[in-house]
Amino acid sequence: MRDEFNIGVDIGGTNIKYGIVSSSGKILYKEIISSGLDRKGFLSNLRKGVDSLLLFAREKGIKINQIGIGVPGTVDILKGRIYGIPPNLSFLKDFALRKYLQRYFDYPIFMDNDANVMALAEYKFGLVKGYKNCICITLGTGIGSGIIINGKLFRGSSFVGPEFGHISICYHGIRCNCGNYGCLEMYASEPAMLKRAKELLREKRNSILYKLVNRDLNRLKAIDIFFAEKLKDKVACRVVQETAYYLGAGLSSAVNLFNPEVIVIGGGVAIASGRNFIKMIKTEICNRAFTSATKNLKIVKAKLGNDAGFFGASILGEELGAW
Amino acid sequence: MRDEFNIGVDIGGTNIKYGIVSSSGKILYKEIISSGLDRKGFLSNLRKGVDSLLLFAREKGIKINQIGIGVPGTVDILKGRIYGIPPNLSFLKDFALRKYLQRYFDYPIFMDNDANVMALAEYKFGLVKGYKNCICITLGTGIGSGIIINGKLFRGSSFVGPEFGHISICYHGIRCNCGNYGCLEMYASEPAMLKRAKELLREKRNSILYKLVNRDLNRLKAIDIFFAEKLKDKVACRVVQETAYYLGAGLSSAVNLFNPEVIVIGGGVAIASGRNFIKMIKTEICNRAFTSATKNLKIVKAKLGNDAGFFGASILGEELGAW
Repeated sequence: MRDEFNIGVDIGGTNIKYGIVSSSGKILYKEIISSGLDRKGFLSNLRKGVDSLLLFAREKGIKINQIGIGVPGTVDILKGRIYGIPPNLSFLKDFALRKYLQRYFDYPIFMDNDANVMALAEYKFGLVKGYKNCICITLGTGIGSGIIINGKLFRGSSFVGPEFGHISICYHGIRCNCGNYGCLEMYASEPAMLKRAKELLREKRNSILYKLVNRDLNRLKAIDIFFAEKLKDKVACRVVQETAYYLGAGLSSAVNLFNPEVIVIGGGVAIASGRNFIKMIKTEICNRAFTSATKNLKIVKAKLGNDAGFFGASILGEELGAW
Repeated sequence: MRDEFNIGVDIGGTNIKYGIVSSSGKILYKEIISSGLDRKGFLSNLRKGVDSLLLFAREKGIKINQIGIGVPGTVDILKGRIYGIPPNLSFLKDFALRKYLQRYFDYPIFMDNDANVMALAEYKFGLVKGYKNCICITLGTGIGSGIIINGKLFRGSSFVGPEFGHISICYHGIRCNCGNYGCLEMYASEPAMLKRAKELLREKRNSILYKLVNRDLNRLKAIDIFFAEKLKDKVACRVVQETAYYLGAGLSSAVNLFNPEVIVIGGGVAIASGRNFIKMIKTEICNRAFTSATKNLKIVKAKLGNDAGFFGASILGEELGAW
C-alpha cells in the first residue's frame, strides 16, 4: 500500500505542535508555535502553523489527505466542538473549532481529546502495536488517559473520559478542582509532585534541589526532581517514590477493572523520569492488583514522547472514519 | 422469529438456581437446589438439577438448544475452567467444569462469571435493553460487576474483571482479602454493612435491630437493616447512608472512567433495599463525578432480581457464539 500523508496538530496550553506524518508513521516535517494568550491570537497561530505545513507539502508535491487535531479537554468528536478545557485555554470553551477551521481549510478535519490521540499513536506506531486492550496515561499538569478496548479507542457514551486523573484514590482525600475528593491528579500530577517537594524542602535545607533551581523554588520542575533522584537526594527520592505509590494504587483499580495487556505511561513527567519510576509503579501494581491480571501485564514508558500528540492526531480520520 | 429454548444455571455459594428460558425471555420452568458441601455433592446436585429440567423439556416436547452456566468467580470462558472462586465453593477451584459436564450432557455448554451473566440478562431482557454502555453491579457477600461496552460484554484480556468490588476507594484503607487496601468490597458489601451495624449497636442498645434478630446479632442480615431503616432506626439509617456514600464514591470513579449511559444495581443487598438507597447513591455520584458524565446518566435497581443469573446464563451461547 502506498503511503498517504496527513497533518497532525497537538494543541497544548503553552505550545501547538504540528507535523506531516505518513500513514506508515514517518514524520516528514514538524513545527512548534506558541498557543497565544487569547482566542484571536490562538486561532491566528493555529492557522499560520497549518498554512506553513500545507506550503511545505505543496512545494514537495505531497498530497495531504486530512487534518487531525488533539485537544487537552473534552471534545464532541461528532460536532467538532470543545467542551471541557484547562484554564490556560479557557477561551476555547464551547468553541466549534472544526466549523471555524473548515472555513479556511478544505480538508476533512477530525478532533479528539489529546490523551485519546496519544493512545492512538502508541497503538498504531508505538509500543502498544498489536495489543487489543491497553491503558495509556499521560502525566503532566493533569493526568489524562486513553483506553483501547478490543483494538478500538473507547470514548464513553458522551465523550467524557476515560478520565483516569479523576478516579478517587481516597474517598475523603484532597479536594480536587473538579469537585470530587482524592482524585489521582491531586497526588501524582506534576503540580502535586512540586507541592509535595516544597513541603519536604522546608525541613531539608541541604537538598540538592535548592541548588538546581538557584534557591528559587518557583522554578522547580518535575525534571529537577528526577535529576536529583538520580543523585540520591532524599527529598527527590521520597517524592518520586510517593508519586509511584499513588500511581500504582490508582492503576491497580484500573487493572482490576479493565484487565489490560499493556499500560503505557507518557506525558512530560514520564519523559523526565528515570528507569526506576516505571519499575516502582509496577511493583505497587503487582502488590495490589489481582495476580491473574498482573501475571502477563506489561507496563512501559511511552515511545513517541512529545511527538505522540500530532502523530495520533494525524491518523484520527482513519479511526473516526470507522467509528 | 420462533422462540428457542435454553437452560440457564446460576451457581451460588448456598444454592444453584436453574431455569428453562425462551429466547424472547419467558421462564418456562425454574428450580432451586442446594449447592452441596463438597465437590462430589455439588456435582451430583448440579447434574440432578439439569436432568430434571431436561426431563421437563422432554415431557413438554421442548427442544433445548444449549446450557449456560454463571459462576461466582473467574472463569476461562474458552476453556470452561474455573479459576478464582469464593471460599464456600473452594472445591471448584481450577476445575474444568465444562469438560466434566460435557460427559453427561450432549449440548453446547457455555460458562461465564455470574456478574457478567447478570449484566447480559439486564442487557437483553431487563432495564439496560437498548443502551450500549452500561455498568451492572451486584451487591451481596461480595461486589461483582459486568460491563457492557458498545453493546458487548467486556471481559478484559484474561477474563479477570471488571472487578468493581476491588477498586480501592482509599489507598491506605481497610486491608482486603485480595491483598489490596481499601477495596470497595470492604466498605459496601453485605458483610461490611453487618460489621458496621454491629459496631454501632454496641452503643445503641435501644435499636430496633436488636428486636428484629431476637438480640442475636449473628442472625443480622442486610434485609433487617433496610427494614429498620424504613422505621427510621438511627443505626440502620446511618449504615445505609454510609454504604450508599461508599458506593457513590466508588461508582464516581467508574463513571469518570467509563462514562456509561446506565448503572444497574442488583444482587441481594439491592433487592433488599428501599427506594432511598438508589437515590442516595445517585446523589453521591452527582456530587463527585463530572457533570458532563452524570447529566444523562440513569441509575436503576436491577429488574430481574434473583432470576437474573440463570436468565443471563441461558443466552450465553448467543453472546459467546459471536465472541
